[in-house]
Amino acid sequence: MIQKQNIYKSRQGQVYDWMAREGISLLLIEDTEGRRDSNLRWLSGMPADALLFLSVERKTLLVPWDINLAKLYGQVDHIRAYAEFDRLPVKACIKAAALLKIPHGSRIEIPGGTSYPRFLRFIEALTDFDIICRDEGGAGTVLEQLRAVKDVEEIRIYRRAAEITNEIIDLLEKQLRAGKIKTEYDAAQLIQGECRKRGCEGTGFETLAAGPVRSMMIHSFPSYTASPFGTPGLSILDFGVKYRGYTTDVTLTAVMEPVKAQERLIALTEKAYKLALGMVRPWTAAADIAAAVDAFFAKSGKAMPHALGHGVGLDSHEGPALRNREDNNWILQPGMVITLEPGLYDPRLGGCRLENDVLVTEEGGETLTASRIIRL
Amino acid sequence: MIQKQNIYKSRQGQVYDWMAREGISLLLIEDTEGRRDSNLRWLSGMPADALLFLSVERKTLLVPWDINLAKLYGQVDHIRAYAEFDRLPVKACIKAAALLKIPHGSRIEIPGGTSYPRFLRFIEALTDFDIICRDEGGAGTVLEQLRAVKDVEEIRIYRRAAEITNEIIDLLEKQLRAGKIKTEYDAAQLIQGECRKRGCEGTGFETLAAGPVRSMMIHSFPSYTASPFGTPGLSILDFGVKYRGYTTDVTLTAVMEPVKAQERLIALTEKAYKLALGMVRPWTAAADIAAAVDAFFAKSGKAMPHALGHGVGLDSHEGPALRNREDNNWILQPGMVITLEPGLYDPRLGGCRLENDVLVTEEGGETLTASRIIRL
Repeated sequence: MIQKQNIYKSRQGQVYDWMAREGISLLLIEDTEGRRDSNLRWLSGMPADALLFLSVERKTLLVPWDINLAKLYGQVDHIRAYAEFDRLPVKACIKAAALLKIPHGSRIEIPGGTSYPRFLRFIEALTDFDIICRDEGGAGTVLEQLRAVKDVEEIRIYRRAAEITNEIIDLLEKQLRAGKIKTEYDAAQLIQGECRKRGCEGTGFETLAAGPVRSMMIHSFPSYTASPFGTPGLSILDFGVKYRGYTTDVTLTAVMEPVKAQERLIALTEKAYKLALGMVRPWTAAADIAAAVDAFFAKSGKAMPHALGHGVGLDSHEGPALRNREDNNWILQPGMVITLEPGLYDPRLGGCRLENDVLVTEEGGETLTASRIIRL
Repeated sequence: MIQKQNIYKSRQGQVYDWMAREGISLLLIEDTEGRRDSNLRWLSGMPADALLFLSVERKTLLVPWDINLAKLYGQVDHIRAYAEFDRLPVKACIKAAALLKIPHGSRIEIPGGTSYPRFLRFIEALTDFDIICRDEGGAGTVLEQLRAVKDVEEIRIYRRAAEITNEIIDLLEKQLRAGKIKTEYDAAQLIQGECRKRGCEGTGFETLAAGPVRSMMIHSFPSYTASPFGTPGLSILDFGVKYRGYTTDVTLTAVMEPVKAQERLIALTEKAYKLALGMVRPWTAAADIAAAVDAFFAKSGKAMPHALGHGVGLDSHEGPALRNREDNNWILQPGMVITLEPGLYDPRLGGCRLENDVLVTEEGGETLTASRIIRL
């Protein structure tokens, strides 16, 4: 437990240091319905539904929706129930400033995602303070950067999460070959059951299982149904397990009796995946890898309708972005855990995607998960 | 299909009329990761991940992340892939204004949840227009009010969703009595399986199953585990099924060998539930019902740490709010579907909650679901 506390103290410490440099006296983090922010859990251990205040004097105040849950999980200095403040962030902020003795005139940073109308309410209610709300260069940016590089404890968690994921992939392949998975639902249910059995909190996001008639969608809707899976054509299965808060994210494609044009989609996807993996090494620009894959597909007259990949962690999508866009400035660093997920989709042929989680190391990329094209 | 189209045309029509009254030429609705908004689905049939533009000239433009999905579901006039605009809302808005021939100088309303920094980017990029961003009195408020009163088609969907929910509650009780549900996981898995079998899109939210050692939490974390459920003490099961987009929301409490103090929690919860149900009738202030329940608990020296209930629909939490707060102005109306969910939680005794979905009718409240305290 002491070790665990130290992790949170150390994370909070990095933020305090940044606050001191930026002249921020009080920082508000909010994770509530409609405004999810995993920075809450990363900084305090509280899994969800709370406000967290950090003062530059190195004190934390947690304002949870559920006080019992907060007492179990919160690695903080003070806890006060959100109900005390009528569950109003502005009201909680006024009291937090008093409790944490924030001097009048100093700067309070609120989440960059704060809506314009709510921003106005903060300004009106906290006239004695300088309210800061920014996305670029603010606390959100700093926390995104800090979280993108996983620490030793997080990598340990990832290795276990990947092990569980790989056991499930093997089981899926076995059951597919045995004809025991007949529908999208069968595949999704197997994943849900097997991950919970192994101590996971659940899946990291809703499993996407799309049989041959639906796999042309990037994200099938509904996410899975009772329709056939693993039958002739291309079936896509995109899932992740959530272990101690951290989610994996993999996609396998099951192929049966492919026609020539489907074989071509598969071959291009596999080649794109290898191309991307070969480029993973520290200090490479993430956008360059994505651009290389887009160029590779373009040469064959194909286009991928989504990004090449993204970081994973407490969120299933977090930094770094592996996206071919001018404003993507992410540089790979040792300790980052990223997905590579090239895919091609055709309304007539269906879709093919291959996705694994890769740890960026000093030497290059270490593939943690073992997803693959499964030929039935 | 024509009938279905008419529903969307009629919903869009209500918004066009409001836009004309407000002098809004273009309205943006956004449903993307981190910025979920079921108004997209309600207005266009597109289940998720798109921008929707409505012009006061009664035209709609859908800008989806997945063009294939949009072609299947979108009940709109125009579709353009989000990728064309580099998935940037500001860029899409500029092009939408051009495509839909919005006159310079006119008003464009963007979502009330738009962050302050992004609001500034809209202002900077669309200097020829008057950008409106508001939460109170804006499109969000109007849509919340429109959606709170369900139409005939929605009530038809709710009756079927409630039927499925009730079949599952009966099955849960049967399996609990037969000793076949031993863990939180067993209960959650049964719900997931049975709702998908019956054609549901899934559960409306992550099932919360909390056995005796965890039921003192309002929302158990993790939502369900391999720990015992339905063993001596109080076990809470909070779930909903999502049928054609609409979710139910019920909570049952399973009780075994209760001690006297636990019996008292149960009795108070059941009395509070009856008190609330008896007050449901059109033109009653929602806050008054919540206040009556809070007062009832207070008389016994207890306090409920959450609201009495809320509307359900495409979102598991939507208007009206059944909350005892001064700023709650919701008045019950025929066609509203609300939850009543009194509950009490004690770190030592565990928690007890009873929740059902109630349709407000001309006469009073019609209980659609059949959740209950199950004594094992």
